[in-house]
Amino acid sequence: MTHPAPDDALPGIGDIERAAETLRPVAVRTPLLESHALNEALGSRILFKAEPLQRTGSFKFRGAYTAIARLPEARRRPGVVAFSSGNHAQGVAAAARLFDVPAVIVMPTTAPRIKIDNTRDYGAEVVLYDPATEGREAIGERLSQERGLALIRPFDAFDVVCGQGTIGLEIADQAAALGIEVDELHCPCGGGGLIGGIATAMHARSPATRLYCVEPEHFDDTRRSLEAGYRMANEPGHETICDAIVTPRPGTLTFRINRELLSGGLTADDEQVMRAMGWAWCHLKLVVEPAGAVALAALLSDVRSARDKIIAVVCSGGNVDAGLFSRCLTSA
Amino acid sequence: MTHPAPDDALPGIGDIERAAETLRPVAVRTPLLESHALNEALGSRILFKAEPLQRTGSFKFRGAYTAIARLPEARRRPGVVAFSSGNHAQGVAAAARLFDVPAVIVMPTTAPRIKIDNTRDYGAEVVLYDPATEGREAIGERLSQERGLALIRPFDAFDVVCGQGTIGLEIADQAAALGIEVDELHCPCGGGGLIGGIATAMHARSPATRLYCVEPEHFDDTRRSLEAGYRMANEPGHETICDAIVTPRPGTLTFRINRELLSGGLTADDEQVMRAMGWAWCHLKLVVEPAGAVALAALLSDVRSARDKIIAVVCSGGNVDAGLFSRCLTSA
Repeated sequence: MTHPAPDDALPGIGDIERAAETLRPVAVRTPLLESHALNEALGSRILFKAEPLQRTGSFKFRGAYTAIARLPEARRRPGVVAFSSGNHAQGVAAAARLFDVPAVIVMPTTAPRIKIDNTRDYGAEVVLYDPATEGREAIGERLSQERGLALIRPFDAFDVVCGQGTIGLEIADQAAALGIEVDELHCPCGGGGLIGGIATAMHARSPATRLYCVEPEHFDDTRRSLEAGYRMANEPGHETICDAIVTPRPGTLTFRINRELLSGGLTADDEQVMRAMGWAWCHLKLVVEPAGAVALAALLSDVRSARDKIIAVVCSGGNVDAGLFSRCLTSA
Repeated sequence: MTHPAPDDALPGIGDIERAAETLRPVAVRTPLLESHALNEALGSRILFKAEPLQRTGSFKFRGAYTAIARLPEARRRPGVVAFSSGNHAQGVAAAARLFDVPAVIVMPTTAPRIKIDNTRDYGAEVVLYDPATEGREAIGERLSQERGLALIRPFDAFDVVCGQGTIGLEIADQAAALGIEVDELHCPCGGGGLIGGIATAMHARSPATRLYCVEPEHFDDTRRSLEAGYRMANEPGHETICDAIVTPRPGTLTFRINRELLSGGLTADDEQVMRAMGWAWCHLKLVVEPAGAVALAALLSDVRSARDKIIAVVCSGGNVDAGLFSRCLTSA
């Protein structure tokens, strides 16, 4: 087949630039934060992309809004449905509200209370399910069919990847404004939509930057898949506090992107993540949730690898329960 | 006297614009953060100036760097001395380091540990004194004379006020970029240098904006002085968690500015401040210290007064001990 079918198309830089235009009036152009103490200690320049400051407290708003904006109006009007452990839920709920269409969010009963409450606060209808006995995808599909709702997938979708990719455009622009070129970019990774979009943008705008996904220990399916060359699943039987990026295996679309563009993967364990959250509280004055801090955690746990480099580190979200956050402070 | 002596001069907008030029390569142009949930609930637009994201974690870096930059080189070379409960100390220490001159900081033994440690981390020599038995000004003056150090005062100084005033320039520019005009500006107040500088800038750039200082309950010397028309001292015998803005009375220079430009003062008590810190953690993902949260606290405690307005709220710093911060989260 010489001409790929539309479903096979990968997002290009133009698709991400159009998403940036769509997002401009509603999304936050989040700042790049720096710790001058860390920079001095390493002889490096570490730039933290602060997505906790994004609308809804995580990057997920970008992809959700882009996807809903690109629905044909007749398809959008009945409303949207999404399944999510939390941040995608809030992103979809907030975006749907801006378009004044209903949103139904399918969430596990195990999701952090703050995420369920916030999703309802955004005006969405929350349908809870027991992850031990039910499948969220089946529930989402059924709601989609019964009520004519458009399903907004959390990561393995062209438009969602385009929205997340706007972070890469911003990092490239912000680095250029500082007169510097980024040597490496480290980004938290669950299904791969965030790093996939960012990688697409950075590959076009800053082709010399080496791109790394960062995952929780025992949930490094993308890292192992990159090494193997095909999609591998995580081994069952492990737990992590990084609830927002626990996915069984890389997405099909996202892995096709990441296989081409990433230089490799890194990991961090829960203890390193908690220390990183305390560090960000103390040194960046930024609230970062566990999954959002995994790239920061890997960097702080191996600072020798960061010496004399310019590294962009994506902090992807900041929605975290008070109890867990307090424990990170005492361990800081 | 028709021509005021130089010591009587008040900072003008040109002096603040020159400070902004001086600060451009080294200070952070901190973002204006918003909570869309709060905006919707109030029918307002509340813009939070996020100075915890400033270098050293508070606005104090702006004034300290400006003051050191404006010293004649021969005066600067022997070094600088400052007395401070914390944030000014860190600001002076970090600024002196950038000019590669020694800094001696006179701090009370009661200052939060994090502020003493951070000041030392910036390379300053810390001289501790017992606030119950010694006077910090006398110690500062003595060190200044014995070692030829230039004294950098915390608030009642022309150049320091100019540096803090750059926050006002940024707020005016950032509001203009959003296409809006700020109705009110609420700002934490200790000696009055921060609000004095901001008021000078806003009066020139956004003259319709009404300007309010916000102080801790029982430490509302500026509010009462504004009402009386002359400088009044605080009553002794009270305590507050807002350690960074506990000052005995308004400064002479700063009160001359604030008497002309402010519309009045507000207050918040410790419990309201702690709730505000928890709110900022949850809704802004921003770490704010007690003194830095006092304007936010007053606003959240009287939301009816904030309805249908565009209000800029200065969050002035984020250097806070872990124990106190954790208690704010549980009360959130």
